[in-house]
Amino acid sequence: MDFEKMAKELVAQMTFAEKMSQMRYEAPAIERLGIPAYCWWNEGLHGVARSGRATVFPQSIGMAASFNEELMLKVANVISDEARAKYNEYKKFGDTEIYQGLTYWSPNINIFRDPRWGRGHETYGEDPYLTGRMGTAFVKGLQGNGKYRKVDATLKHYAAHSGPEKGRLSFNAVVNEKDLRETYLWAFKYCIDNADPSALMGAYNRTNGEPCCGSKTLLKDILREEFGFKGYVVSDCGAICAINNEHKVTENYAESAALAVNNGCDLNCGDAYKWLKTAAALDLVSEETITACVERLFTARFRLGMFADDCEYDDIPFDVVESDEFAAINREMAQESIVLLKNNGILPLKKDLKIAVVGPNADSKDVLLGNYHGVPSKYYTILRGLQQYTGVGYAQGCTLFEVPNRDWGITVREALVEVKNADVVIMCMGLDPTMESEDGDAYNAQTGGDKVTLELPDVQNELYEEILKLGKPIVYVNVSGSCINLSKQKDQCDAVLQCFYPGAMGGLALADILFGKVSPSGRLPVTFYESVDDLPDFTDYSMENRTYKFFKGTPVYEFGYGLTYSEIEENWIDENAVEITNKGDFDTKYSVLKFEYIPHKNLCGFKKVFVKKGETVTVKF
Amino acid sequence: MDFEKMAKELVAQMTFAEKMSQMRYEAPAIERLGIPAYCWWNEGLHGVARSGRATVFPQSIGMAASFNEELMLKVANVISDEARAKYNEYKKFGDTEIYQGLTYWSPNINIFRDPRWGRGHETYGEDPYLTGRMGTAFVKGLQGNGKYRKVDATLKHYAAHSGPEKGRLSFNAVVNEKDLRETYLWAFKYCIDNADPSALMGAYNRTNGEPCCGSKTLLKDILREEFGFKGYVVSDCGAICAINNEHKVTENYAESAALAVNNGCDLNCGDAYKWLKTAAALDLVSEETITACVERLFTARFRLGMFADDCEYDDIPFDVVESDEFAAINREMAQESIVLLKNNGILPLKKDLKIAVVGPNADSKDVLLGNYHGVPSKYYTILRGLQQYTGVGYAQGCTLFEVPNRDWGITVREALVEVKNADVVIMCMGLDPTMESEDGDAYNAQTGGDKVTLELPDVQNELYEEILKLGKPIVYVNVSGSCINLSKQKDQCDAVLQCFYPGAMGGLALADILFGKVSPSGRLPVTFYESVDDLPDFTDYSMENRTYKFFKGTPVYEFGYGLTYSEIEENWIDENAVEITNKGDFDTKYSVLKFEYIPHKNLCGFKKVFVKKGETVTVKF
Repeated sequence: MDFEKMAKELVAQMTFAEKMSQMRYEAPAIERLGIPAYCWWNEGLHGVARSGRATVFPQSIGMAASFNEELMLKVANVISDEARAKYNEYKKFGDTEIYQGLTYWSPNINIFRDPRWGRGHETYGEDPYLTGRMGTAFVKGLQGNGKYRKVDATLKHYAAHSGPEKGRLSFNAVVNEKDLRETYLWAFKYCIDNADPSALMGAYNRTNGEPCCGSKTLLKDILREEFGFKGYVVSDCGAICAINNEHKVTENYAESAALAVNNGCDLNCGDAYKWLKTAAALDLVSEETITACVERLFTARFRLGMFADDCEYDDIPFDVVESDEFAAINREMAQESIVLLKNNGILPLKKDLKIAVVGPNADSKDVLLGNYHGVPSKYYTILRGLQQYTGVGYAQGCTLFEVPNRDWGITVREALVEVKNADVVIMCMGLDPTMESEDGDAYNAQTGGDKVTLELPDVQNELYEEILKLGKPIVYVNVSGSCINLSKQKDQCDAVLQCFYPGAMGGLALADILFGKVSPSGRLPVTFYESVDDLPDFTDYSMENRTYKFFKGTPVYEFGYGLTYSEIEENWIDENAVEITNKGDFDTKYSVLKFEYIPHKNLCGFKKVFVKKGETVTVKF
Repeated sequence: MDFEKMAKELVAQMTFAEKMSQMRYEAPAIERLGIPAYCWWNEGLHGVARSGRATVFPQSIGMAASFNEELMLKVANVISDEARAKYNEYKKFGDTEIYQGLTYWSPNINIFRDPRWGRGHETYGEDPYLTGRMGTAFVKGLQGNGKYRKVDATLKHYAAHSGPEKGRLSFNAVVNEKDLRETYLWAFKYCIDNADPSALMGAYNRTNGEPCCGSKTLLKDILREEFGFKGYVVSDCGAICAINNEHKVTENYAESAALAVNNGCDLNCGDAYKWLKTAAALDLVSEETITACVERLFTARFRLGMFADDCEYDDIPFDVVESDEFAAINREMAQESIVLLKNNGILPLKKDLKIAVVGPNADSKDVLLGNYHGVPSKYYTILRGLQQYTGVGYAQGCTLFEVPNRDWGITVREALVEVKNADVVIMCMGLDPTMESEDGDAYNAQTGGDKVTLELPDVQNELYEEILKLGKPIVYVNVSGSCINLSKQKDQCDAVLQCFYPGAMGGLALADILFGKVSPSGRLPVTFYESVDDLPDFTDYSMENRTYKFFKGTPVYEFGYGLTYSEIEENWIDENAVEITNKGDFDTKYSVLKFEYIPHKNLCGFKKVFVKKGETVTVKF
């Protein structure tokens, strides 16, 4: 079907005012044309978000750690199935509210340039190639390959957006051409070339002086002309008002709206496009330009089957939501999102060991969910996951970062009692999504959610040191969406695992690994540094001395690092073929990574395979 | 052993200053006499509290609803087992911190005089007789009947203490002699006569003008002389400083301390007894009086076996904590704490019904725990409890009381979608322990934690009304520690249950009832009123027009009300014997209540029995 033609015909019947009204994210109905109201804003970063019950997958950074794009495609298919199921239900009520539509403002394919960034866990890590590949799989799964588009995926935040959170509305990212192309734009172009994303969201900041949502360089010259992007562009929420309010690039809202529209920002999340009428009256924007925007938006709505009665997704029933099949995919993704960093042989845990589980993240539901999340009705904290295998002792031992109120009764001593009565301790430390976040509502509020250090908070360090003194074997599980300095743990613990925010099945998946039901197979999608002192200033967007490609120091754990329970040998036949031999005692999945040296080390291929013990699998790139 | 003699001999070796030092709750060591430091403060209202992992039983008000004193004795035995197990562990570390000792400041046997009181859920309800009987069982279970005392129980808060929370340090409860004797003191006397409690805690308020912790009338004349209480008296925390600071009854701390000590308050939680030296220097208090106090305190410490090496409880091992056996007792108590108020036949739920569970209390861990609680490592929210039986839909639908932030994605609509896709809805509404509390940290902060209304918060009412419109069968589960106006639900819902804060096994116990594994057998320990407008002023301590005894209006559900799944016939043979016949189709437990009319209705006996269907059991009082 020619959705573009259908859109043009419909838009041609609109008045100028009606057209402008449709460029706001809460688009009103045009009843005389049979167009219902529509709210464009929906979220699905790692599962349908903010819209009630849903399968909640691991946070994006964890899914990236799987290095498994086939599994990512399955995950995104689940998300779009649930998205459609929910949309179908909301339609029955005639709803057109936020978080009810088919236009998803995911994925976040920004580069996790600096470990301080509070929203880094929304991304696929620090590598553009990994980001592009995982983003492509995600977009494909969301959008489907049917007659109609299943849901719209939106690449964000375009471009060069990775903190600081505080002051993001007035920040100017200064980026050289090489970094812009190789790092900040690479995954956008890759996804556009390979996944045909419906939409793209402009960032809050300026890049090289131009506000991203009104940037001729980024939106017209590069996105539309050079990359040939055919979809629609939406502003981040409030970003257009910020062009005058914060960036001081324009004088008023009308000028901001005009700048954005004239450079191809079709849809406004926020209030700026209320001023389009004024802009038009002042001849700052033409009806022709407006018409082109609205045609792009209605092309998308037609393509989503919103005005059709033969859309193949209208029959997806509500009971797919959180189905057992989806839970199994979630568990698999959660297993693969966990990275084994050290193992002196203590893992998998032997039967009949008495286990104590301690730490503020051991029984935390919040760390399962990350940010931009849905509501799981079935979920496994780490504690509960372990309990599916065996009885365990448990103590919180400390809070995440606050000095405990005496009345809470949370003490280091309760943890020491549990550890003393056990053979091995599983320590669940780290951060939670309020400590590295967009809003900065707790620990790092003063920095808008960005971290200032890679160290654990003092209260956790104190608990760690006290437990260490007891001399029991320690399995250290770091739960966080970003790098924490694990140098002490690397030296002192018997096993170290990085568990990102692992989703509803997270605790069960971790237990699957700790008890040897599956071998770990995740790899770090970011470098684990020792200290921010080893890095450039957070506001410096040069890639020099950042990420595995350019970092000059010695990381605690490098990008791509990750152990299995087996012993895998890679035998490269030529640069495009490798034999993977499992010489150990465990069947395991294994992600083979292909690097080139140009001259810096550069990921240029990866493939995940399952290799039984004693077997060899050949992978070709 | 003659603990009193041992205490006298030890105290005789102390200097005057050393004696005074021992009257503070954080008693310092006297090394030259081999006396270690000791902190007297511990909590165990419904399980060992604030000291890490523990079996967390239903909140006291729920245990009262069981009307099962034999089960209460078992519960209290579990608490004291866990208390000893924890004490034994702390001792290995040489600890003498808060929440680590053997002196428990439980139970709260105040009368739940007015439904507004934020701490009412800590009590056994509105009836002195029920309170006295349940309190007696609780004290007996805590204290054991061994050579040594297992742990010390503390009756609190003596006397006439039941709100308001706000201003409690300066409040004067005006109580007539009849109410004082029949209502406010009755359970204290009953427990003293029947359970030999080690300790008693004075209240914050004044009663008839005298500060409770320094009241000659209450402490000397009634408690010591009339009731013959032989234990020690501890002040509520900060209550003695309040005698001058807030009550303005004395001029300074030294006078307050002297007033308390001279009237027999042996132990000070707070700082006032720092001023005993000054009081002694001013001849406000004599060494003889101090000596008597300290002898009582050391009698208790000797009786607890603190200085012995043959205490029978020193071998209770740590692994009793949260044992399966204890979990089974907890589940039983949780089952019996739930009160079925209405059932049109929908319960127990038929197999294969599609169920939607909605409401802010459906997946809340907080409501399981109440206040003054420990940490369960295994716990069942209502949602999780139901999931042990069958898959269910779930939506929070609204918050407890806040208007949801858009970014939370909590909407009425998500709930309506779930309900529309189900055959029956289980609505889990009510309060949580922050909404009726001591500190008033949320909803009712402006009233110090006391309720101002019996109505559900607006956001919950809105959700309720919207769901009602869908016309699906409704099982309404009210989760709260106090009465809520359930008149609408009584009319409009198919089934109504009152679930107090039900402890770690709460969700599983509720599921046991909803799915018919057991018949409900709880009864209301408080009157469920329609409105505070039907009651006297909250500050009015007269019992006129309060509780089932004196209320002149028509309650929504009366004290003692509670259905089973069966049909029970009571056939009273004479005033002390009744035949209980189960004429229905379910085996069930049943609490038979014996009332007298003097001339007001007055509970004077109760007994819980198990009656199989078709059988008759005779109960004698």
